[in-house]
Amino acid sequence: MRIFDLSHELALIQSTSATLGWDQQTYLPPAGAAYRAKQLAWLAGKAHAMATSDDWQRALEEAEQADDGSDAGRSANLRELRRRFERSRKLPVEWVARESAAASLAKQAWVDARQRSDFAAFAPHLETLLGLAREKADFWGYDGEPYDALLEEYERGTSTAEVVALFDSIRDDLASIAAEAVERSAARGATLPAGPYPIEGQMRFNAMVAESMGYEFEAGRIDTTAHPFCTKLGPRDVRLTTRYYENDFTPSLFGVLHEAGHGLYEQGLPAADYGLPSGRAVSLGIHESQSRLWENHLGRSAEFWAKWHPVAAEVFPQLASCTTESLIAYVRRSAYSPIRVESDEATYDLHILLRFGLERRMLRGELAVKDVPAAWNDEFRALFGFTPANDRDGCLQDIHWSMCGLGYFPTYSLGNIHAARLFAAACRDEEIRGSVARADYLPLLGWMRERVHALGSTMVSAEVIHHATGGEPSTDDYLAHLRARYL
Amino acid sequence: MRIFDLSHELALIQSTSATLGWDQQTYLPPAGAAYRAKQLAWLAGKAHAMATSDDWQRALEEAEQADDGSDAGRSANLRELRRRFERSRKLPVEWVARESAAASLAKQAWVDARQRSDFAAFAPHLETLLGLAREKADFWGYDGEPYDALLEEYERGTSTAEVVALFDSIRDDLASIAAEAVERSAARGATLPAGPYPIEGQMRFNAMVAESMGYEFEAGRIDTTAHPFCTKLGPRDVRLTTRYYENDFTPSLFGVLHEAGHGLYEQGLPAADYGLPSGRAVSLGIHESQSRLWENHLGRSAEFWAKWHPVAAEVFPQLASCTTESLIAYVRRSAYSPIRVESDEATYDLHILLRFGLERRMLRGELAVKDVPAAWNDEFRALFGFTPANDRDGCLQDIHWSMCGLGYFPTYSLGNIHAARLFAAACRDEEIRGSVARADYLPLLGWMRERVHALGSTMVSAEVIHHATGGEPSTDDYLAHLRARYL
Repeated sequence: MRIFDLSHELALIQSTSATLGWDQQTYLPPAGAAYRAKQLAWLAGKAHAMATSDDWQRALEEAEQADDGSDAGRSANLRELRRRFERSRKLPVEWVARESAAASLAKQAWVDARQRSDFAAFAPHLETLLGLAREKADFWGYDGEPYDALLEEYERGTSTAEVVALFDSIRDDLASIAAEAVERSAARGATLPAGPYPIEGQMRFNAMVAESMGYEFEAGRIDTTAHPFCTKLGPRDVRLTTRYYENDFTPSLFGVLHEAGHGLYEQGLPAADYGLPSGRAVSLGIHESQSRLWENHLGRSAEFWAKWHPVAAEVFPQLASCTTESLIAYVRRSAYSPIRVESDEATYDLHILLRFGLERRMLRGELAVKDVPAAWNDEFRALFGFTPANDRDGCLQDIHWSMCGLGYFPTYSLGNIHAARLFAAACRDEEIRGSVARADYLPLLGWMRERVHALGSTMVSAEVIHHATGGEPSTDDYLAHLRARYL
Repeated sequence: MRIFDLSHELALIQSTSATLGWDQQTYLPPAGAAYRAKQLAWLAGKAHAMATSDDWQRALEEAEQADDGSDAGRSANLRELRRRFERSRKLPVEWVARESAAASLAKQAWVDARQRSDFAAFAPHLETLLGLAREKADFWGYDGEPYDALLEEYERGTSTAEVVALFDSIRDDLASIAAEAVERSAARGATLPAGPYPIEGQMRFNAMVAESMGYEFEAGRIDTTAHPFCTKLGPRDVRLTTRYYENDFTPSLFGVLHEAGHGLYEQGLPAADYGLPSGRAVSLGIHESQSRLWENHLGRSAEFWAKWHPVAAEVFPQLASCTTESLIAYVRRSAYSPIRVESDEATYDLHILLRFGLERRMLRGELAVKDVPAAWNDEFRALFGFTPANDRDGCLQDIHWSMCGLGYFPTYSLGNIHAARLFAAACRDEEIRGSVARADYLPLLGWMRERVHALGSTMVSAEVIHHATGGEPSTDDYLAHLRARYL
């Protein structure tokens, strides 16, 4: 069908952007940055023009009219293409350019403002972006509240009310688990044998771990970057990045575990459907469930370290001097940090709850931009018991708002919740439970491949969870996991 | 002017292709190759369609009509844009697609045929490509012979007859210099202290050398590849590659010297004119003159090693055990090789003379494809005194024909000739001569920047040589250089 051909062509443009974006964050020489932004803007313009063109619309209509329902996969693809087309067309072209320009300015202003911890310098940009986000919500439309329209972009089919219900139901439990985990961790005081942990050794060890997870290096690689990410450059080209510290091998390892979780999902999507909804990840929340599964459920498990401690000790001889238990305690240590990205498994979600609450209030007009720092600090104190030292470590710490990313944050905690749900369901299979106990993860990967990865994005998140687990999304497994591990 | 805007937009597409091409040859995972070819084909199609569109033609005509000759640079850009447009438009779109498809097939067939040294397997492809090359020459038109039309693509403004005259005038001298250089080198028997030369050390040393040449790492980088190259990804993003051998540090170093010579040219083109003829290199021959200047005239000079031997000995302690003279002898050793890319300065051009002669005869219809191996071997024996062991080391060794690159080879020797001419002219300046004697190359680079790099491609090669040296292209300086160094 012609609309599928056009979709494949659009994927060529978008994957080209992804390639340039990967290079931008790994190898691009500093002086090349300005021109790279122009290349990316050109590609983005072409992609947007194509996906909102009359020709696209005609091809879609032709396909819809010709669809006799005999192929459920094809019909699902057409439905999802229709949904996306409608959303894209609702945004006027000049408005998209305006948003893109505002985000460019805001990004630079945010970098500077954060460095100087100067919220006032960022505030006018946030005001503009908030206005644009409200306009975008109005363009897209919503049943409940403006937040719904934005959340739909990242977590199709999940309403703000559902997220509120989920988050409210676990807020107190999360806070008390975090408090106890932090207290226990402080009392125990886990440490790692002193470095150096040569970077070459870290690369070698991480590659062994990634390979054992089933990550296919024939169709991927691991590079170095300031902010780890996973990106797909084509149906058979899924790349990871991580960052290295000489004095500790675990940050690069957990970067790889997390990003390889994303990568396994991308490598597990049907390559032949690349460019179609059936070849794409369903949502950020489900995506994050895969990264969190590998990073936390497996990577911080006793079984993982029983297997990998001896291997690590061959690469880093100083690790022979510590017990496996002390390593496990080290990777499970918990402490309150003002910074989300430095937070551990037991305290992470509190950061998300805070952001979700503030974003909703901003979008509803209940919280003015000028009052954001105070609101942030109040809420932070309520959750963590102390106030960030300054706005750099407070409301200026995240890049998301400067990238027009309002509505994105909840997907992190949805990922945690879904990860536990999926893992618990998979472990009801005796073979998987047995192999996971030996840190052999291929049967588990096979389960995810079949029940999650293969689905692409023709279902919504809750349907994926139901398809995979037989039940609804729920926080039960997640709380049980945290309690078992940290209490 | 609108045609300049369009040219800048075309450069965005082409530089995006260059970025994907760079990745293809450095970091692309094997399984990503097939899709990468599709991305590149899509971009190539867009670029060709744009550069041959009616809109492009209209914008060019508007600019020409509006041009009052008050800005010589603008007029020169318009003339060159017109010339290129005419050439592009002469190739029918379906024909370009056919050539591209034939090249794809031929490239794969060449890889296999070369591996098995099976010329018969490649012959049908070469037949097709030769037919296409003749058609292309007819589309483009020529005054002298078909070769002229193809050569114009790489060395605008230089006729086949001029190349014949240049090459004929030096053939006997080159052959006798080569014979004596090979004989002397065999008698002397230079060796390098035994390895290993750790790759990390080679990278560090090469970077020091490149930096001292004036190569700007802020706007570039050096990566690893199988076949070294230099590529420009944007006005301020010029990247080099090289390859490493643990037992010898000089192949990677000379790779960097050569590619950094190309890179300095690209970094020296006017960045503000990127996308216009005035911001582009003039020809492959002039480009190669820059790489050969650095690789041979400077990199194999006594002064270079007087400066860099002590530095190299700090990186590779075993080099403290040899004299600087023995190192110089090592990098100037000469031997007949059947393989062009493994040949040294004293024997290299013989390989080019051979290819140029065969290509002309093929295009004139005087040499049938089936007779190429015998003709190759006959001519090789006449030049080198022995016959290649097989076609893999003979007429199947180069990738150029499989890439529709007939007409390309002469630019290598033109580069050698121009390099000597430019270097001799620059050294008439006393300050440059003095600084070169101290292996301080920045004054020399300044001379090249001003007299060659800054010109872009609004002159033809001979005009550039005249502008820079005050004289015509000539082989005198090149022969004098070879005699001084090798006899």
